[in-house]
Parts: sequence; C-alpha cells; structure tokens
Amino acid sequence: MRLVVVGAEGRMGRMLVRAVAAAEGCTLSGAIEREGSVALGQDAGTLAGIGPLGVPVTDDPLAAFVEAEGVLDFTAPAATRFFAELAAQARIVHVVGTTGLSEDDLKRLEAASRHARIVRSGNMSLGVNLLAGLVRKVAAALGEEFDIEIVEMHHRMKVDAPSGTALLLGEAAAEGRGVVLGDRRVSTRDGHTGARNPGDIGFATLRGGSVVGDHSVVFAGPGERLTLSHHAEDREIFARGAVRAALWAFDKKPGLYSMTDVLGL
Amino acid sequence: MRLVVVGAEGRMGRMLVRAVAAAEGCTLSGAIEREGSVALGQDAGTLAGIGPLGVPVTDDPLAAFVEAEGVLDFTAPAATRFFAELAAQARIVHVVGTTGLSEDDLKRLEAASRHARIVRSGNMSLGVNLLAGLVRKVAAALGEEFDIEIVEMHHRMKVDAPSGTALLLGEAAAEGRGVVLGDRRVSTRDGHTGARNPGDIGFATLRGGSVVGDHSVVFAGPGERLTLSHHAEDREIFARGAVRAALWAFDKKPGLYSMTDVLGL
Amino acid sequence: MRLVVVGAEGRMGRMLVRAVAAAEGCTLSGAIEREGSVALGQDAGTLAGIGPLGVPVTDDPLAAFVEAEGVLDFTAPAATRFFAELAAQARIVHVVGTTGLSEDDLKRLEAASRHARIVRSGNMSLGVNLLAGLVRKVAAALGEEFDIEIVEMHHRMKVDAPSGTALLLGEAAAEGRGVVLGDRRVSTRDGHTGARNPGDIGFATLRGGSVVGDHSVVFAGPGERLTLSHHAEDREIFARGAVRAALWAFDKKPGLYSMTDVLGL
Amino acid sequence: MRLVVVGAEGRMGRMLVRAVAAAEGCTLSGAIEREGSVALGQDAGTLAGIGPLGVPVTDDPLAAFVEAEGVLDFTAPAATRFFAELAAQARIVHVVGTTGLSEDDLKRLEAASRHARIVRSGNMSLGVNLLAGLVRKVAAALGEEFDIEIVEMHHRMKVDAPSGTALLLGEAAAEGRGVVLGDRRVSTRDGHTGARNPGDIGFATLRGGSVVGDHSVVFAGPGERLTLSHHAEDREIFARGAVRAALWAFDKKPGLYSMTDVLGL
Repeated sequence: MRLVVVGAEGRMGRMLVRAVAAAEGCTLSGAIEREGSVALGQDAGTLAGIGPLGVPVTDDPLAAFVEAEGVLDFTAPAATRFFAELAAQARIVHVVGTTGLSEDDLKRLEAASRHARIVRSGNMSLGVNLLAGLVRKVAAALGEEFDIEIVEMHHRMKVDAPSGTALLLGEAAAEGRGVVLGDRRVSTRDGHTGARNPGDIGFATLRGGSVVGDHSVVFAGPGERLTLSHHAEDREIFARGAVRAALWAFDKKPGLYSMTDVLGL
Repeated sequence: MRLVVVGAEGRMGRMLVRAVAAAEGCTLSGAIEREGSVALGQDAGTLAGIGPLGVPVTDDPLAAFVEAEGVLDFTAPAATRFFAELAAQARIVHVVGTTGLSEDDLKRLEAASRHARIVRSGNMSLGVNLLAGLVRKVAAALGEEFDIEIVEMHHRMKVDAPSGTALLLGEAAAEGRGVVLGDRRVSTRDGHTGARNPGDIGFATLRGGSVVGDHSVVFAGPGERLTLSHHAEDREIFARGAVRAALWAFDKKPGLYSMTDVLGL
Repeated sequence: MRLVVVGAEGRMGRMLVRAVAAAEGCTLSGAIEREGSVALGQDAGTLAGIGPLGVPVTDDPLAAFVEAEGVLDFTAPAATRFFAELAAQARIVHVVGTTGLSEDDLKRLEAASRHARIVRSGNMSLGVNLLAGLVRKVAAALGEEFDIEIVEMHHRMKVDAPSGTALLLGEAAAEGRGVVLGDRRVSTRDGHTGARNPGDIGFATLRGGSVVGDHSVVFAGPGERLTLSHHAEDREIFARGAVRAALWAFDKKPGLYSMTDVLGL
Repeated sequence: MRLVVVGAEGRMGRMLVRAVAAAEGCTLSGAIEREGSVALGQDAGTLAGIGPLGVPVTDDPLAAFVEAEGVLDFTAPAATRFFAELAAQARIVHVVGTTGLSEDDLKRLEAASRHARIVRSGNMSLGVNLLAGLVRKVAAALGEEFDIEIVEMHHRMKVDAPSGTALLLGEAAAEGRGVVLGDRRVSTRDGHTGARNPGDIGFATLRGGSVVGDHSVVFAGPGERLTLSHHAEDREIFARGAVRAALWAFDKKPGLYSMTDVLGL
C-alpha cells in the first residue's frame, strides 16, 4: 500500500515515516510539509534518521495523494480539515490521529466519509482501545455509587486539554452509563466547588517533561477503588497503529471508522 | 437470616459482627472463639465496639450452628476445615473468606458442598470480583506478546503470600489464556533468573504497615502497558460482601459457589 | 490536658473525640455543635461510638473554652475565624485543621496568634509533613528542567479544590524554587491551553468515593520522572496528629505554628 | 575526551554511541564487540542508526583503550572484570553501568581503583541518584514503625533480580537506618511466610514487556504510606549519565566513585 505522511518533519511525522518503512506491505510514496518549511526537498527517510528512502518532502499534497492509496495525518485541526477534502477527492484512505478537533471538524470528517474511508481515533494504540472497551463495561456494571474520574499526563509541549484519549475514555464511560458526556463532564475544579454531583465524569490534566501519554480511569466507590490505566512508553505504538489502520481500511467501503473497528474489539 | 460469626474476637471477626448488625434482614445469633479465649462470655457487640447485642461469645460452634442459618468464617485453614464439617451437619450456609487454603483443604470444601451451600472467595468485594472478570477478558484478548504480572500489598501481619486475592486474579488470567496457573506461576525472582519465559504469570508480594489490600494486574506489551488495579480502603467491604453472600445463598441448592455467582457478574 | 472538640457531631469531630479519649495525658472536657443541632445534649463519646464520656454536646463554645486548655477545630472557615477569637480570649491552644481558608482568614489567625498559641496545618499527618520537606529539597535540587505537578484525590463530599494539603505541598515546591506559589500556580486546564510555561506549578484535582486523601508531587524531566506520594488510609492519622499538636503547644509561647514545628522536621 | 564503548552492538551500546556522538567535549574513539560478532568491521555510528562516525567495531579492547581517555561499559560481570584490568593498565576512566556484579566482582573493582578512576553505579540517572538520597533521609527520619518495601519493574529480557538500582535504593534505606542491607533483605515471599519482621527491607520484582525501569520505595506506617518512585522513559538518561560521569572523572584522582559524587548530591 502506497502511503503519504503529512507533517513529515515533526516528531510524530518522522515516527510515521519510520513505521511505514518498517511495516510489511507498505511503501512511503510521499511526504508533505507546509510551504516554506526548511525540510522541503530533503529526503523523508534521512529526516527520520533511517537513511534515504528516495522520497523528497514537498508542499504539494494533492500531487502526492493522487499517486497514493492512503495518508497518515497527525497534524492540527485546520490542516486535517484541508487534507480530508483532498483525500476524499483523491479517493484514498485518510488515517486521522489529530487531536483537539472541534464538533464542527468532526462534522466535516463525517461529511467527507460519505465518499472516503476515514479512520479516526484519539489514540491509535491497541492498549487504549482495549481500555476503552473495559471502561464501557465497568461503567455499565457499576452504578452511580462509583464515581468516575479520568486523569492523564502528557509532555510539556501538548497544547490541548484534556487529551483526545482522555475524552475517548470519557465517551466510553458515558456510553456505558447511557448518558451524554457533554452533560456530565467536569474538567476544572478550583476554589469552592461544593460536593461532587452524582453522575459527574471528572477530568484532571497533568503536563510536564517528556511524558508520551499516561491515562487512568478511576471508579471510586464506598470503601474501594478500581483503577484502569494505560501507559504509553513511546510514540511508535501510535505510528504502528496508524499504519495498521491504513492497511485495514484499504478494502473497506467509504465510512468513518474507529480503532475499535480496526482492532476488531 | 440468623448468622454466626466464628473468630469473633479477631479484627475481621469484630468487623463481621458490625456488618451483620448493620445489615437489613440479618441477626447475629452466635459468636464463637477458641477454647481459653479471654473473650468467652463477653458480649460480641460490646467487643465489636457497637454496644451489647445480647450474644455472648462461646466456644461451642455446633450448638451455635444448629440455632443458625449461616456462618461467616474468615479464620485459618485448620479451623475452616472443622467448621465446614459442622456447617454441613447443621445444614447451614458457610461463607468462607479464609485464605491460604491448600489443595487438600479445597477438596474437602468441595466434598462438603455436596450437602451444604458454601460460598468461598479469596476476596468478597464487588471491585475485586469485577476486576477478575476484566483480567480474564484482557488475558484472552491479548496474546503472549503481553506479559502478565500481578503485584499486591498487605499489612505487616499477613502470614501467607501471594494473597488469596492475587491467586484469584492469577486464576482469572490463566483461564483467559486457556492455561493452568500452576504451570505458569512464577512467585519468586532472586539472583540470576535469566530472561522471562513467554507465558509466565508473575507474582510480586509487598508487606508493610496497615495496608488493607492493594492488587494490580499488569499487561506489559511492546511499547505500552495496561494496568488494572483494586484498592481496598477498609475491611468493611469484605464484611459487607460476606453478609451479602450469606443472604444470597439462603435459598440456593447445595454447592460450592463464588462471589461471581453472588454478584451475578 | 483538657481539650474541647468543635464540630463534634461531624465525621472528623467524632474521630477527634475518639483520639482525645485514646491519647495519654488528655481528657475531653467539652464538645461543641452549632445551635439547633440534633446532637445537642447527647454524650460526645456515645456519638463517637466509644461509650459515654460524661461530656454532653453544647452550643456554648466560650463556656467550654474557659474550662479547657485547648480546642481541636476541623470545621469551616467562618466557624474557625469565630473560634480563633474565643480561643484567644480564653488563652487556650487552638489547633486548626480547617481547609479552604482565604488569605483574609489567615491574616486573622496571624493577628490572633500574637496572644494565642495556634497550630495550623493543611494536613496533620507525619507523612505529609515529611513529604513537604522532601518536595522543598527536590524542587531546589532540580531546576526548571523538571516540571512540577501536584495531583490529589479526596472523597466526593469535599467542597474545596485543590485540597489544603495540595496547596501546602505547592508552597513547599515554590519555596524550594525561591518563587511565590501565587505567581506560578495553574489549577485549571481545559481546551486550547498552549504549551506549558516553564516554572509553572500545576494542580490537578480528583473527587470520588470515600477516598481519605491521596497526594502526589511529580517532577517530570527529560526522559525521567520522580514522583513523591502520600496515601492516607484513615482520618485517624489526622486526629492523632491534632492531639499531638495540642500537647506540643501546651507550654509554648504565643505564635502561629505549623506541624513542621510540632514534628521537629 | 576520547571515549570507547564496549558491547557496541547491543541495545545499550548503541545508545552509548549515540550519546557520545551527541555530547559536547567527547569523541567516539573506539567500539568493541566480542570475537566472532557479526558487527566486527562495521561502523559504530551506522550500527547506532546515526550515520558513519569513522569508527569500525573491533574485538581488540586493549588497542582501543590505549588510544582513549575513557571507556563506557554496560556489559556483563565477567566482561567488566576483564575490562577493569585493561582500563587500569591503560590508565583511563572506566564508567561501569553493568549490573548483577557479585561481592567478588566489587572487590576487584575496588582493587583496580587504587590505580584507576572508576565510576560505578547501579543507575546513572539524575533522578534515581536523587531518589537514593531521599530514601536515606526518610529511612533515618522514620523509625521501624514504617516498613520499607522496594518494588521494581523491567523488560522481559532482564536476567538478574532485584535490579542493580533496587539494590542501590535498598543500600540507601539500610544506611539511613544504620543497618547492613544483607542482614535485613527479604527478596522472596511465597507460601506461609509468617508475619513481617520489624526492620526487614523487602524487595519485589516484576518483569515484562519493554519497560525501561520503574522503581518505588514504599514506607508503610500506621494509617499512612509514603511512596517515592522513579520512572525511566528511555535508556538515553543512562547513556547521557555515563558520558557525564566520564567527563567528570577525567581530572579526578584514582578511586571508586559513584554517581552521587558525579552529580554532587
């Protein structure tokens, strides 16, 4: 499968280039950066620290997309909206790991998915998606007697909070309880908050150092606590998951898919 | 339901007395200690710090059992074997929270359960039994690429290792993988151990302070880790679970039941 | 030492009554609740579950204070301001474990301490106060290359955030770095936050179940993390600490003391 | 400073090569593998994934050592004994990160250090060495009322237990208490262990996945727990620490040094 990596110079982009090069059944066919990037013209493999792959970085995504069968995209919301349109035009698979997407962004992806195969997830790892399934089950099994709190930590450069993965886990908890996350979400606590409302789903965010991504979901009941945690050691698990998603979506019908579909969980 | 507490003077025994007194639909009808105990003749409620219940502690279990409908037993293996026979004779429910039972002890309980209703669990809490179900599922979903390790901590007075609950979780993991725990169990690592064998299920034991009981099951794979943990804040959750088990077993047929049955998980 | 417990009917108040009764060298001489409380007239020991102590609950603090040598106060900011004046008038030791005090409240305590012996702490336990000392040292030893984050969890009924203890730990971190906490404190993160500012001290708050109090201070640097945590198993450690503080302050000069003084750390 | 890396083909060796290449004031002057290794003759930089450095891997350590000023050694006990003699002969700095050294091995290093500058540590990271200092202080401040337990987790390929770092932390705890670790060390618990002995220092070992190295020291007292933890995200922190140690030792007198000396803690 011929794959393009967008944002090829960034930390995640270089990781994706390495993952594509390492995976069986895949070739890197294009690497995109924004206009004016110093990476333009350089070899994507060399940039990624694995030696030349014969793929220079360009700023022309459409030209790259029409020559490819899929694009791996961990960029930013505005860029992802743009790439979604191009990918739909080029009729290639669009794997979206971008976080911080707004409701409106998600609607656009949904619209694009009428004609395109999009796999989107706040987290591409096997462990997190398995965790989401457990959270759904436990939230359904335990009533509101057990309070749900989600805590996450990421590196100091992360610009959005809570993380896309924390929200994905919160959605799973809300689904398990049969409620809408937006109605129960508490993301800040500061000052005189009053007692916790039954049914709230709380989020707490830590930022610091070079943490790749830690998430815990706490079910706190009378006299006992159940905590389900995921610890990501390196970003490779996300890059490998994205490649896996692209390969999986290759022969699927147009639609908006999640990693749960990809992993068959 | 008329219930007897054996080992009524111990920390767990007094907890059970309080739980029986607090639960709806239950009465304490007897309280047993060993011959020579200084508690003999004292009121079980007073000993438990909740004021007199009109039930003096005696050393005659059979007399107490024949007047009761169930017995709550968190004692020691030898005592539990003895109480199992008496409970079968008296045809009352026997709730067994005793840990450290040998294979032979378990066979005797199984034999006794042909005529008696026995509920036995290494842990009577809702959270741990729910956790065991999750461990079974995750062990089945993830292959041997994810190593399974179980770590627990209990207070400094605990005399057996690993805890009954850790073994219960290990059994769940082994079941999920379709293997026999005894074949894969690694409970000690010291000195030159060599690399880990694929498929091993490891146990690590911490002891100290007044810890009621912490258990974690770690699934450690390439680049990521999933950790499922239970934290018990106080022993009341075990005592309440034992009372719940007795009430549940009241109208059941003879057999050896687990908390999974009681909780309907 | 003759001690009064204010807020004697509450969960912490009953704990304090038990701690006073259990400690050597102390007697409960008074127990106070607010006007109209159903506890008025009842015996404080009976309320606390340890049998009658001959001390009925009243709503007249001044009468109780003049007969006593110290008062233990884990109530609310408004009540604590009021008790501080009465305690200063009665010239008795005032141990303050109340949390959520404002800057203005603290100024009043400071004013009162010109004539009174006040011991105030966001947390009366040995472990937390030792932890605060470690946090100060580590914050001083590691530069801003290591980001500091403080995360805490308490039961669902807690009304203020972050906890008094979390703030105490944040103060220790700020002292270690030679900065003012108020200038660096980040207590909420939600939405597009941008990257973390170097030097920020972050707070994250979890609420749920019956958690007595968990606190962690994370120092997250390039490629590694140091985490210093305290876990309180039961409120008794705070009650015992408060009694210890009262006994310690008995023969001290007027002033505003902390648990660091009491513990000699 | 001209540095040789021994075991240059292994995971840690390649990490060291990258760290030397990246550090200011250092050059890679030699790279050693065992006789018969397929890496012999290859460029050490290429092997390490950072492009050629003009340093072919050889199996002649003495020739390399005499041309160098220091050697970085994270190999195995037998190899380290051998390299210590050669490094002493060549009068170069020997940085030893090898774990699993026996008492006898340590004596040989001590003997060699009469003429050589050796820096040895079970762990070369800033965080762990800072942690060891905290453990020493806390163990001294808290009496035997607080039980000490050390738990660690490493990847599935690690062959010794407990880890060198866990032992280093145990030594710090023992020093803090003024006892000898060997007299108090408990590394296995399985079956009927009896209650914990006051003063024991317990070790628990977990193995699995690709965990770089997690260590926690738990101080468990009555009603509360203090836990001091270190989490290593990648091996680079050890490689960077080893280079730092070599640079530090460059102008020191012969002796056996630790990272505490290097870091000035």
